Amino acid sequence: MALIVQKFGGTSVGTTERIRNVARRVAKFLTKGHQLVVVVSAISGETNRLLALAKELQSEPDPRELDVVLATGEQVTIGLLCMALIERGIKARSYTGGQVSILTDNAYTKARILRIDEERMRADLAAGLVVVVAGFQGLDAQGNITTLGRGGSDTTAVALAAALKADECQIYTDVDGVYTTDPRIVPEARRLKSVTFEEMLEMASAGSKVLQIRSVEFAGKYKVRLRVLSSFEEEGEGTLITFEDDTKMEQALISGIAFNRDEAKVTVMGVPDRPGIAYAILGPVGDANIDVDMIIQNAGVDGLTDFSFTVHRNEYQKALDVLNQQVKSHIKASDIRGDAKICKVSMVGVGMRTHAGIASRMFRTLAEEGINIQMISTSEIKISVVIDEKYMELAVRALHKAFELDQPA
Amino acid sequence: MALIVQKFGGTSVGTTERIRNVARRVAKFLTKGHQLVVVVSAISGETNRLLALAKELQSEPDPRELDVVLATGEQVTIGLLCMALIERGIKARSYTGGQVSILTDNAYTKARILRIDEERMRADLAAGLVVVVAGFQGLDAQGNITTLGRGGSDTTAVALAAALKADECQIYTDVDGVYTTDPRIVPEARRLKSVTFEEMLEMASAGSKVLQIRSVEFAGKYKVRLRVLSSFEEEGEGTLITFEDDTKMEQALISGIAFNRDEAKVTVMGVPDRPGIAYAILGPVGDANIDVDMIIQNAGVDGLTDFSFTVHRNEYQKALDVLNQQVKSHIKASDIRGDAKICKVSMVGVGMRTHAGIASRMFRTLAEEGINIQMISTSEIKISVVIDEKYMELAVRALHKAFELDQPA
Repeated sequence: MALIVQKFGGTSVGTTERIRNVARRVAKFLTKGHQLVVVVSAISGETNRLLALAKELQSEPDPRELDVVLATGEQVTIGLLCMALIERGIKARSYTGGQVSILTDNAYTKARILRIDEERMRADLAAGLVVVVAGFQGLDAQGNITTLGRGGSDTTAVALAAALKADECQIYTDVDGVYTTDPRIVPEARRLKSVTFEEMLEMASAGSKVLQIRSVEFAGKYKVRLRVLSSFEEEGEGTLITFEDDTKMEQALISGIAFNRDEAKVTVMGVPDRPGIAYAILGPVGDANIDVDMIIQNAGVDGLTDFSFTVHRNEYQKALDVLNQQVKSHIKASDIRGDAKICKVSMVGVGMRTHAGIASRMFRTLAEEGINIQMISTSEIKISVVIDEKYMELAVRALHKAFELDQPA
Repeated sequence: MALIVQKFGGTSVGTTERIRNVARRVAKFLTKGHQLVVVVSAISGETNRLLALAKELQSEPDPRELDVVLATGEQVTIGLLCMALIERGIKARSYTGGQVSILTDNAYTKARILRIDEERMRADLAAGLVVVVAGFQGLDAQGNITTLGRGGSDTTAVALAAALKADECQIYTDVDGVYTTDPRIVPEARRLKSVTFEEMLEMASAGSKVLQIRSVEFAGKYKVRLRVLSSFEEEGEGTLITFEDDTKMEQALISGIAFNRDEAKVTVMGVPDRPGIAYAILGPVGDANIDVDMIIQNAGVDGLTDFSFTVHRNEYQKALDVLNQQVKSHIKASDIRGDAKICKVSMVGVGMRTHAGIASRMFRTLAEEGINIQMISTSEIKISVVIDEKYMELAVRALHKAFELDQPA
């Protein structure tokens, strides 16, 4: 008998028919003798509907009240799923985040889980109940409702698995696992049987949408065995997220290629190449709550240099405004330029650590396709490049082929 | 400075535009220096939408889980109203039933309020905040979410007013007060400036939809000053629900005429006229959870009698089934007959107590219109008759005129 935490996302519970389907799958697991805690998201579209209502009343909704409104989405789903389970003769009980004491900090709309009191869930599991918990939400120490931000239901599932010391945390999504890259771009993309936490983290931060990045961090920190599976296919084994130690033997060079079109590039031209210049530029950007991803500063000539960074495309205009109004004249930059038509393509793999030549092979492949690289950044297990967004598919396909990702590792 | 509890129903918060309107009215009250607690219902239609989702999964949804789902309706509204208030620069904070410790019993879908901890609200009011509370819901002693049943938001408002010892509890509805009868039936119907709790209770139980009956009971029990007002008209004073003592001086004979078409009549024919027969008939009906309203037993001839009662029209068929299957042969009744095309018309007034002749004047009026009376029941301050439903409007208009209810009292 194993204790398993399963998480079903918004698409998996998108209609009452699909909720019934989730109940059927839960029933199947029960017949194998497992204990189950099920975490669910809001019905797909519901969070956006509630957000739109809120924005009709406040263009920037009050964060505390927004969380009160948004938390209802998951609360509806837990009740409906329990009804579907009970209708099948399965004993089940639903809990909001607050009811199972998911204590968070008070950072409304992006709260972090501090503690979970698992006693009530343990008692229910011992009594043979399926425990259904609302994802995405908790309570702060004062009893205010908080939410964990987009994708927070994954984090709830992993946090519950950690608190309960579950044997496995299964994330059901609309894909059947983690692929070498997006199969919609590269039909030859191959499902990975396993991938390390570090690779998963880098892939998530590089744009892979399979798992929410904080949930992967959480799983890594608490050593939760995590598996990504399809909500809609019955059989597959999905992808297991492993600790590097487990799989050292047959480590692939490159696990996958991630990409995203969500970023924009900003360049501050002709700035003095002196200490403190990066802070002079990025300080005001940070103060405006704009997150910066890649940062590049070239060696300068004549004491002048160009300084580039990328931001989320939604914050592109805001970043330009900050630079033009608060930075440009202050640091005597010659110009502020920007480009929103870029994309980032990243190769991820723990094998990179011990194999030289990955970067040069990547750059050569892109050069052979005539693709100009605008920015480069590297980490221990990732190389990211910024290129013109029109080359994105071409670049991903060429790299997938060059690194033979379509071949079983 | 007064402490006022205001309740806005589903129609009053039916759109974001209307929620903004509620915020505007709250703002106006604040400028008069009052402290305000605002109770809101779910956006109109939302409870029915959620109920329909539940019924897609279970024809009779699990009561505990149904309450989890339904309670979200009010939770959405409290957050949205707070946003509208904050957008106007008003300090406001929302609370679910659980967050202000509205403790109920565990009768899911029709829970009763046991206790309210008002400390948190008092602290907020003292700090100059408008407190916005979700109607219709609470928590039981185990922390399970409960709801109070249809119209429960009125009860929440009155219970909060009682706990806070508020100066007045104002119920905003889509009518501007309590009328002598429904103005859609009798255009001459007149708004009452005041009506007693007892009259209000009898009118609610007789079909008047203005206030939920439990909220009136609650207000009477805790001596809460209650006023019904229009959500949509700015000026009117509505109708004050008073204690009889307050208004003894100018007591009207009859305050109003209530009516409903929600009932059906059932008659058990030719039963032995002996002790225990009423229990033999109504015992099984009660066991089937069918509520009975009027009950009539005529004096018998030849040791046989007819026994009639009314039930809600939704439970008419169920009542007939129970009688035919469990009662008829057991008590040797000659026949079971029923009629769903009836209505009940009731005249209500505390003045009835001290004035004879109301009943005979009522019966004469109906006779003059050629309306046959099928059943009669009376209380100290109410006379109800059951008649063919096709005569309902005619009867109400004739009685309204005969008792000069269109004339100011």
